[in-house]
Amino acid sequence: MSNRTPADLAPKLLEGDRRALARAITLVESGRADHRAQAGELLEMVAQSGRQALRIGLSGTPGVGKSTFIEAFGLMLSAQGLKVAVLAVDPSSSRSGGSILGDKTRMERLSRDPNAFIRPSPSQTHLGGVARRTREAVSLCEAANFDVVLIETVGVGQSETLVAEMVDLFVLLMAPAGGDELQGVKRGIMEMADLILVNKADGDLKPAAMRTVADYAGALHLLRKRPQDPKGFPKALPVSALADEGLLKAWEEMTTLADWRRENGYLERRRAEQARHWFEAEVREGLLARLRNDPAIRAQMESLGATVAAGESAPSAAAAKMLDLLRN
Amino acid sequence: MSNRTPADLAPKLLEGDRRALARAITLVESGRADHRAQAGELLEMVAQSGRQALRIGLSGTPGVGKSTFIEAFGLMLSAQGLKVAVLAVDPSSSRSGGSILGDKTRMERLSRDPNAFIRPSPSQTHLGGVARRTREAVSLCEAANFDVVLIETVGVGQSETLVAEMVDLFVLLMAPAGGDELQGVKRGIMEMADLILVNKADGDLKPAAMRTVADYAGALHLLRKRPQDPKGFPKALPVSALADEGLLKAWEEMTTLADWRRENGYLERRRAEQARHWFEAEVREGLLARLRNDPAIRAQMESLGATVAAGESAPSAAAAKMLDLLRN
Repeated sequence: MSNRTPADLAPKLLEGDRRALARAITLVESGRADHRAQAGELLEMVAQSGRQALRIGLSGTPGVGKSTFIEAFGLMLSAQGLKVAVLAVDPSSSRSGGSILGDKTRMERLSRDPNAFIRPSPSQTHLGGVARRTREAVSLCEAANFDVVLIETVGVGQSETLVAEMVDLFVLLMAPAGGDELQGVKRGIMEMADLILVNKADGDLKPAAMRTVADYAGALHLLRKRPQDPKGFPKALPVSALADEGLLKAWEEMTTLADWRRENGYLERRRAEQARHWFEAEVREGLLARLRNDPAIRAQMESLGATVAAGESAPSAAAAKMLDLLRN
Repeated sequence: MSNRTPADLAPKLLEGDRRALARAITLVESGRADHRAQAGELLEMVAQSGRQALRIGLSGTPGVGKSTFIEAFGLMLSAQGLKVAVLAVDPSSSRSGGSILGDKTRMERLSRDPNAFIRPSPSQTHLGGVARRTREAVSLCEAANFDVVLIETVGVGQSETLVAEMVDLFVLLMAPAGGDELQGVKRGIMEMADLILVNKADGDLKPAAMRTVADYAGALHLLRKRPQDPKGFPKALPVSALADEGLLKAWEEMTTLADWRRENGYLERRRAEQARHWFEAEVREGLLARLRNDPAIRAQMESLGATVAAGESAPSAAAAKMLDLLRN
């Protein structure tokens, strides 16, 4: 671990060394107390770079062609001279055995591109833990001078909300729907989306994809106008990752939206709110973690818990006693 | 409030005085710090009675005839010389404006019965808060020598889980279903049920009710056998609150189950686990409440939060600093 000390990693990271970035992310992903301390040090060191990437959240259920899209989109960005990092948030990965992005062969060309960096989701059951690590990984990617950080998430559970709370833009990738039925997109997810991309707009599926785009455009139109959106947003667009069509247009829409928000102060305000939110969440998590992890506190919890279980004291009274102990 | 001091209330409560019980519950429902302290004192004083009621959770969606059932069931228990207290957990009450049980005219006869005590749900948005107050109200009812405490909940959200975590038995009240479709009972709720009672087994609905009983019995049969259940449980039974039929049988099944669990140690073990669970939950809640309520801590959170929002420190670093401050 000597080559992972903050002092060793920081300069290499700031030079954009991908190996140093991978090691730094491994460090922030570690649950060990000494690694946590080193990770904190490293983050402080590199925070001074002041570099910021465009942070994009990408969600889509399995089958919509997410890997194909990310590979094609990433290669398009790279061809424009932009550096792109791809991270994943998949709280289910520890259960399903394989994480999304775990198999880099899914994005073979992108993973060999010198402008790209791909990082699979850490195996974690605890959503809060995944969130902190992913946010820290985003900071590290920014310090390593990446221009775009793409955070991929599966379209299940609360992972979308979590990703939406750490990005500048949130993109939904969808498949063409049969007929005029929308694909059971929850209203909450719709409301988070800045852009809905309907993939597979090629070959036989093209007419269905175009109809689906129109359907989503109609649905998005019904949503309440958000102050942080310029005219015309949120939008639905067709893309074909396979035929490499519509990707540049999608990127242009993203930058249009991001630029508008930046110029009107919404981007900075959102980041400030997100940062404050994460700070508060970390304090809460840290407080609760101490109950589980501090040996003295745990012993006290065990012993008071035993008197409660034995009926010797009321849960409230024992809790009050414990809270007093924690206060002093 | 002088007649609500713990020293005044405790002896009257232990004598079974219903007015003292109502005042004591008002005390535990209060959010004021001095009331909280008095409530704690009172609970400690009466805990020594060592009295225990049979705690029954009752869930059912609107329209199944829950009030009619509770009234008929309560009167039947009273006729046997048993004292019955009815509490309600309705986290939605503050939103809907009227709590379940808020209108005592719904159970006019039972509310006038000297053996009965009916208490509406407190107006609370916070589920955790409702939980603590309800648990404390159960303890007060037990101290006041009630034999049965019935906790009513609406069949929505997490209120069932919450109630299941504070009772000895959990009963689901259902209406006769049309045809052979089960009424979309979630598997999780099914698994919590010890007894499913199909109400309205009278008149024209009787055949449908009997078929529904058979359907539920079949569905319950498919569930994994639980060690804490004697042979034949969980069960489905027909009842008619209106015609006063099947209520005694339902009560006999409840006591059979409770007696078996008591004799085999499951009842005590469940209560011990529940108490420990509530103790831990209260410590967690109390810790987090201090972040919100302690003026000095709040000011510190505000000031660190502002540096994070301004980009002057990373969320993790600020959180670590805050946690250090909290530790010392």
